[in-house]
Amino acid sequence: MRIALALEYDGTGFCGWQSQPQGNTVQDCLEQALVRMTGHTLRVTAAGRTDAGVHALCQVVHFDTTTLRPIGAWVRGVNAWLPPNLRILWAQPVDEEFHARFSAEKRSYQYLLVNQPVAPAIMRQRAGWFHLPLNISAMQQAAQYLVGEHDFSAFRAAECQANSPVKRMHDAQVRSIGNYFLFDFCANAFLHHQVRNMVGALIYVGKGKLQPERVRELLQCGDRTQSPPTFAPDGLYLTGVGYNSQWGLPATQRRLSLFHE
Amino acid sequence: MRIALALEYDGTGFCGWQSQPQGNTVQDCLEQALVRMTGHTLRVTAAGRTDAGVHALCQVVHFDTTTLRPIGAWVRGVNAWLPPNLRILWAQPVDEEFHARFSAEKRSYQYLLVNQPVAPAIMRQRAGWFHLPLNISAMQQAAQYLVGEHDFSAFRAAECQANSPVKRMHDAQVRSIGNYFLFDFCANAFLHHQVRNMVGALIYVGKGKLQPERVRELLQCGDRTQSPPTFAPDGLYLTGVGYNSQWGLPATQRRLSLFHE
Repeated sequence: MRIALALEYDGTGFCGWQSQPQGNTVQDCLEQALVRMTGHTLRVTAAGRTDAGVHALCQVVHFDTTTLRPIGAWVRGVNAWLPPNLRILWAQPVDEEFHARFSAEKRSYQYLLVNQPVAPAIMRQRAGWFHLPLNISAMQQAAQYLVGEHDFSAFRAAECQANSPVKRMHDAQVRSIGNYFLFDFCANAFLHHQVRNMVGALIYVGKGKLQPERVRELLQCGDRTQSPPTFAPDGLYLTGVGYNSQWGLPATQRRLSLFHE
Repeated sequence: MRIALALEYDGTGFCGWQSQPQGNTVQDCLEQALVRMTGHTLRVTAAGRTDAGVHALCQVVHFDTTTLRPIGAWVRGVNAWLPPNLRILWAQPVDEEFHARFSAEKRSYQYLLVNQPVAPAIMRQRAGWFHLPLNISAMQQAAQYLVGEHDFSAFRAAECQANSPVKRMHDAQVRSIGNYFLFDFCANAFLHHQVRNMVGALIYVGKGKLQPERVRELLQCGDRTQSPPTFAPDGLYLTGVGYNSQWGLPATQRRLSLFHE
């Protein structure tokens, strides 16, 4: 039987999502905990493979097992075997046709940036940091050029394994609340390092080193070497994954929210 | 000359504020960094001595030095010697009469609680957690009994060194925002463990184990042994310290502003 899980994790202590020989990835920790429940080896498949230091408010995965357990056991039972920086939010038996990665129709990411002279102490691994003032309206203008179907090669890591650099960006927004900037991105799929590269470019726009229109030109020329550097992973959150309602999944979308008085 | 500093720190990795022989307290780390700048030993005095695991958005301290440095050196220079979980927000020369603790007219704390079945992974050391539903209106009613001048012995730790258990509570509020409960307390001063003990009692009210009126009776009887247990330090933030404007300090009040849904 196939089971889908939603995960929340703090990426700080993990070497990213994907299994590695040294272990200590989210996938390794989750598989080890599931093996203790199922008694057989298995592999889990995720909607999105997050980098080291990147957090997930809602990552969706699936795995196959022959072990029958009450649904609560896949949440409370497996959580008891997981480290406290990784939690299963819900578990649900799904059709064998469901695939956490290939059935996903869209992914949402948020990037949280602290914009103040002094680096944040409390949020230091939960937010990126930039110390100089940023022009929010220039950043908002530049973000709009990212919306739509584009070849995102200019924001693609060299190691990216995607079949195509063409993705459809449904939403790209920047808001400023107090000392925070919150970036929202939603697309059918993302290239490796794409969000961190787009955030890096928008920060260059905000500090005046890049004209907003230059983001449109970067998209058109598709040359990564002409784009600003990749921004830190600390502020990046995979916030949700969109699936067709036919799969009958519980909520697969969460959000960071800024609260200011 | 006397210098006042405002500090932000993540209490997770510290053994509280107060200097200890083993070191690794906020006071020890700060004094070690200041010694590297001043070249002479010194002691810092804080407005409030926070417990292990308790955070500060704005702690205020003072120290005396004979070393003259540009004001920026006390921020950027000393920050370079501090661990990343401790940051100086600002520095200001102050009158020799100013005392971070004795000049403080009020202290503000916030407590952030996650209320959901599964423990939080990302906010696990930044928020307390309670897994059962809580009755917000009962908690709000109970919180109102805490406002005013009272003998807070029922919420005082046995090791408390305060001269008097009588404190004036200016504000005690609970709000519910998504899966979060946010508690706000402001008083002239607080007893040892007082906020964590009040939060523990309000959670007992919220889960129905204590009637709201019982909080008023606990205050009146003043018996700590009849009160609910001390709640976890993880969600507690010293958010600000109030001083008379005569001291001419920069901002000494901050607030929590970030949650996720």
